[in-house]
Amino acid sequence: MERIDFSKVKITGGFWKQKQELVRNVTVHAVYNRFSDTGRFEAFKGDTSRFTPHIFWDSDVAKWVEGVAYLTMEKREPELEAIVDELVCDIEKMQDENGYFNIFYTVVEPENRFKYRGCHELYCAGHLMEAAVAYYNATGKKKLLDLMCKYADYIEKRFVIDKDTDFITPGHEEIELALVRLYDCTGEERYLKLSEFFVNQRGMHLEDGVADWSVQMYCQSHMPVREQRTAEGHAVRAVYLYCAMADLALKTGDIRLKKACEDIFDNIAEKRMYITGGIGSSQEGEAFTVDYDLPNEISYTESCAALGLALFANRMLLLDPDSKYADVVERAVYNGFMSSISLDGKSFFYTNPLEIIPMHHTRDVSVTGKSRWLPIMSRQEVFDCSCCPPNIVRFIPSIANLAYTKNEDTLFIHQYMDSVSDIEIGGKKVRVTQKTAYPVDGKVQILVEGGDINIAVRIPDWCDSYKGETKKGYAYLELKESSPVELDFKMEPVFIEADPRVLDNCGKYAVQRGPVVYCMEGVDNGEGLRDIRLDSKCEFTVEDSKEFLAPTLKIKAYRKEKSPTLYRKKTDNYVETEATLIPYFAFANREETEMQIWSLIK
Amino acid sequence: MERIDFSKVKITGGFWKQKQELVRNVTVHAVYNRFSDTGRFEAFKGDTSRFTPHIFWDSDVAKWVEGVAYLTMEKREPELEAIVDELVCDIEKMQDENGYFNIFYTVVEPENRFKYRGCHELYCAGHLMEAAVAYYNATGKKKLLDLMCKYADYIEKRFVIDKDTDFITPGHEEIELALVRLYDCTGEERYLKLSEFFVNQRGMHLEDGVADWSVQMYCQSHMPVREQRTAEGHAVRAVYLYCAMADLALKTGDIRLKKACEDIFDNIAEKRMYITGGIGSSQEGEAFTVDYDLPNEISYTESCAALGLALFANRMLLLDPDSKYADVVERAVYNGFMSSISLDGKSFFYTNPLEIIPMHHTRDVSVTGKSRWLPIMSRQEVFDCSCCPPNIVRFIPSIANLAYTKNEDTLFIHQYMDSVSDIEIGGKKVRVTQKTAYPVDGKVQILVEGGDINIAVRIPDWCDSYKGETKKGYAYLELKESSPVELDFKMEPVFIEADPRVLDNCGKYAVQRGPVVYCMEGVDNGEGLRDIRLDSKCEFTVEDSKEFLAPTLKIKAYRKEKSPTLYRKKTDNYVETEATLIPYFAFANREETEMQIWSLIK
Repeated sequence: MERIDFSKVKITGGFWKQKQELVRNVTVHAVYNRFSDTGRFEAFKGDTSRFTPHIFWDSDVAKWVEGVAYLTMEKREPELEAIVDELVCDIEKMQDENGYFNIFYTVVEPENRFKYRGCHELYCAGHLMEAAVAYYNATGKKKLLDLMCKYADYIEKRFVIDKDTDFITPGHEEIELALVRLYDCTGEERYLKLSEFFVNQRGMHLEDGVADWSVQMYCQSHMPVREQRTAEGHAVRAVYLYCAMADLALKTGDIRLKKACEDIFDNIAEKRMYITGGIGSSQEGEAFTVDYDLPNEISYTESCAALGLALFANRMLLLDPDSKYADVVERAVYNGFMSSISLDGKSFFYTNPLEIIPMHHTRDVSVTGKSRWLPIMSRQEVFDCSCCPPNIVRFIPSIANLAYTKNEDTLFIHQYMDSVSDIEIGGKKVRVTQKTAYPVDGKVQILVEGGDINIAVRIPDWCDSYKGETKKGYAYLELKESSPVELDFKMEPVFIEADPRVLDNCGKYAVQRGPVVYCMEGVDNGEGLRDIRLDSKCEFTVEDSKEFLAPTLKIKAYRKEKSPTLYRKKTDNYVETEATLIPYFAFANREETEMQIWSLIK
Repeated sequence: MERIDFSKVKITGGFWKQKQELVRNVTVHAVYNRFSDTGRFEAFKGDTSRFTPHIFWDSDVAKWVEGVAYLTMEKREPELEAIVDELVCDIEKMQDENGYFNIFYTVVEPENRFKYRGCHELYCAGHLMEAAVAYYNATGKKKLLDLMCKYADYIEKRFVIDKDTDFITPGHEEIELALVRLYDCTGEERYLKLSEFFVNQRGMHLEDGVADWSVQMYCQSHMPVREQRTAEGHAVRAVYLYCAMADLALKTGDIRLKKACEDIFDNIAEKRMYITGGIGSSQEGEAFTVDYDLPNEISYTESCAALGLALFANRMLLLDPDSKYADVVERAVYNGFMSSISLDGKSFFYTNPLEIIPMHHTRDVSVTGKSRWLPIMSRQEVFDCSCCPPNIVRFIPSIANLAYTKNEDTLFIHQYMDSVSDIEIGGKKVRVTQKTAYPVDGKVQILVEGGDINIAVRIPDWCDSYKGETKKGYAYLELKESSPVELDFKMEPVFIEADPRVLDNCGKYAVQRGPVVYCMEGVDNGEGLRDIRLDSKCEFTVEDSKEFLAPTLKIKAYRKEKSPTLYRKKTDNYVETEATLIPYFAFANREETEMQIWSLIK
């Protein structure tokens, strides 16, 4: 099984066209401007007069470069390309003769190279390698790729041959998956081996340095990766590692690695994932905790973690075309990832709360600097640790990577997006077109030109209306040039319940329409959302919304009458009202206000 | 209106007899032993070889002495009395010639006397004064009283006459109410004036020192006390202040002080009090926060705060015989206060959580020392800051202070306890007897010997069954020697709801029987209490329990069927079960286990 690269898939309309245009016209510039303001670009010139580089700035800039590359693939952006080209020259100048490159450890602490496992050197290297591959693929310009190959060679020398570094595996995974990409791009097997080295060594050395505040589990080093069965530690690190494990399982046919990936995926999807596809429920450690521990108001659910989960699940489809993987991709992308960017494309969430109660942010406890941690209520343009914004810049332009895989004779359609794709399959060159407003509605027309092909289309987990036969969640169909396939996944708003072991959601229900999870906001519904009981016996009114891209929902609801006393005997006194729900991904675009996904019903 | 002192009221049976015997036989010794182990007694000899005194140790020991005094009133305890007598000699030896006495500021930092507002000197002084009054009343021994009068004189000199201290009002209130007691005992008006001085100056000097992590509101100094309308800051400090304000309003007839007390009380009772009578919802600052902010799992609800609220509300009855005050006394005493001591009398809660989920205490976030604050799940024998245990030792033996007040011609019966009391009223000396198993059931027989009297009996707020006429919650009756009054407050378990603005309780219901709030524990009901839906259409089975002193309750209930997937369309699949509820005050007496008060119903 192999992926149809997004370079073959042109998004032509609908939801993703709008989002890609937003990134092209707004986001890529907004992130560049904030990164310039904060000195992230001038750092690459060795200029630290205004700011001291952070240890992860290389990765911030590298992800932005990768985003520029992906935009460039569809349409050149000369201004942005000029910025990248200048940056590549800076990197060339600053790179050590031996191949080492890291702005912080070149300019600020050159004596501390490869000394501290927790200090993101190899993480930065990985993102630079991904950027190099992307920029080469997009533009044919090879300089950055060459520089990064030289760096990869040096890393191999130090970690594998000389073994003279102060740690064995990186504290923050990323280079593992990047080296696979570098191998795919260059054909250089040593890079694949180097990736395998880092993956295989992880968890084999309990003495490998961790920060004094973290434990080996924090960076997935508590046991050899093939023995791991649950998703543990820092959520972003975790999913980046699992991506590399899936890549290697595919390339090498390693059954034990595949099994570890499968079990870890199931642990996430069945026990440790929010309804939004958000993962990493704890702010302490930005980490997974234990099964079913999914608190709403204090959820951490980092944007990068939702994105990373989509990347991991998407890789699993190459190992096994089971729709459970694509369902998780869809859940994460339309909810916990999409919430991370504002509708105007300029600002971002790092954490994506499942519930907001502004009163809890502003309550006065009569002491200073000691209040409980809560996720922020509004998106920001940039963060000190600004990993999420450039991750969005690279992810949305490459969103079509999620759409298709193929084997010898079948094209798998995992995600629905209005698009035209040129695909080679079974020796034929065909053009496959999807016409759809998904996720605004569930109608998808699929056409082929250039020959008849076999397709397998995913029947989404939320869809009840499809009546045909399926295998692991896919309907296997013939797509004839003469007759388009017309899918119609009926998108009715439905109430969803969580497993009762998710204690925060007991007695509560979420509303979902198609893949889109809905929420209520205080700005529409008044304060005290927890008191609203949606009338589950009523129909929702579905209203188109240009503002939110997906429809808003209205439904009859009830509130308890306010009480003259703080406590009273149970009453059945309710006041009828109407509740308005909007797509979760569109929350916090109007003002700081209450928000919740899980609601009472009546 | 005046209080019938508990020295006139002999508890003869039932709930309070058991608790008083427990304190006499177990608790007073257990607290003494732990205080000895930790050096709190030897500190008074100036012996710091094993331990350095804490700044609040005087108050710990003083409250214990007060408890010994109250036990002594009913029956001498020569061994305990000997300990106190020795301690008084130690105090005499260590007291400065000028009258100053504080073990920490005598032994450890004599140069820092009256320098730091936050350092509990006057708080300790207050508790020593209360102990002195109590010990004199109980034994006739006057030495400690004399020493403390000398100290009070010195405090007056420094704070009022010389005005040479580094702060004006104490950071932790207590001395204000203690000075009123010293005045009552000695008749020395200067002590009343000194109390007034501290109360009146509070909030008049925004420059008066606060700790660098606190603000004036923390110690109720954000505005003059007569302007305060809401309960703010550290909850224990707050209610101790409000006690003194109520005392002074009564003694001086100050209408504005009385109005402040009334409004603050209403703010607590109507907006800032847990169903247990617990107050101070925030661990940060051990403080009140904002109206209706009453989270269950992270409630702070210090034992001393519930006790202090009972003391405050009980004082309000002297200003206005309105049952709302006695209802709050009852709520706090049988729930948020009573939970603070184990059934075996040996161990204590400092915080009294409304909900416990052990998984949240043990979940691994893969970092060290960084987990969210949660209240402890088991009572301890002693704490570093061990203010609560000796507070219990003095409160339970004097519980009958809550029972009666009188005016010229009417005896008000606020709390029901099996007892015999010798009371002078309307020129008559009568003996009033209550026969009751309250709160095990609601039957109370009231008899008088020595003449007929007028009584006003409180109809509890939870009682629906009383049909006669009432005024501010009291039934005004004639109690004739020839015919006892037979009250029967029917105690049926009922479901209680909170005002919907208490967001943590939306959709949830508590169970209360008479004044006793109930809870479920995991040890009886299995894990996942939040998933249990009590069948509100069914009757409770009420089962006597010797173990818990009040009955246990059983009722039909339902759990959601566990789900094969983490999220699924709403089902109506329930599994029938039976739920067991025990008195909240008896929770955590078997093992560390889940606990909750507020439950779903069906």
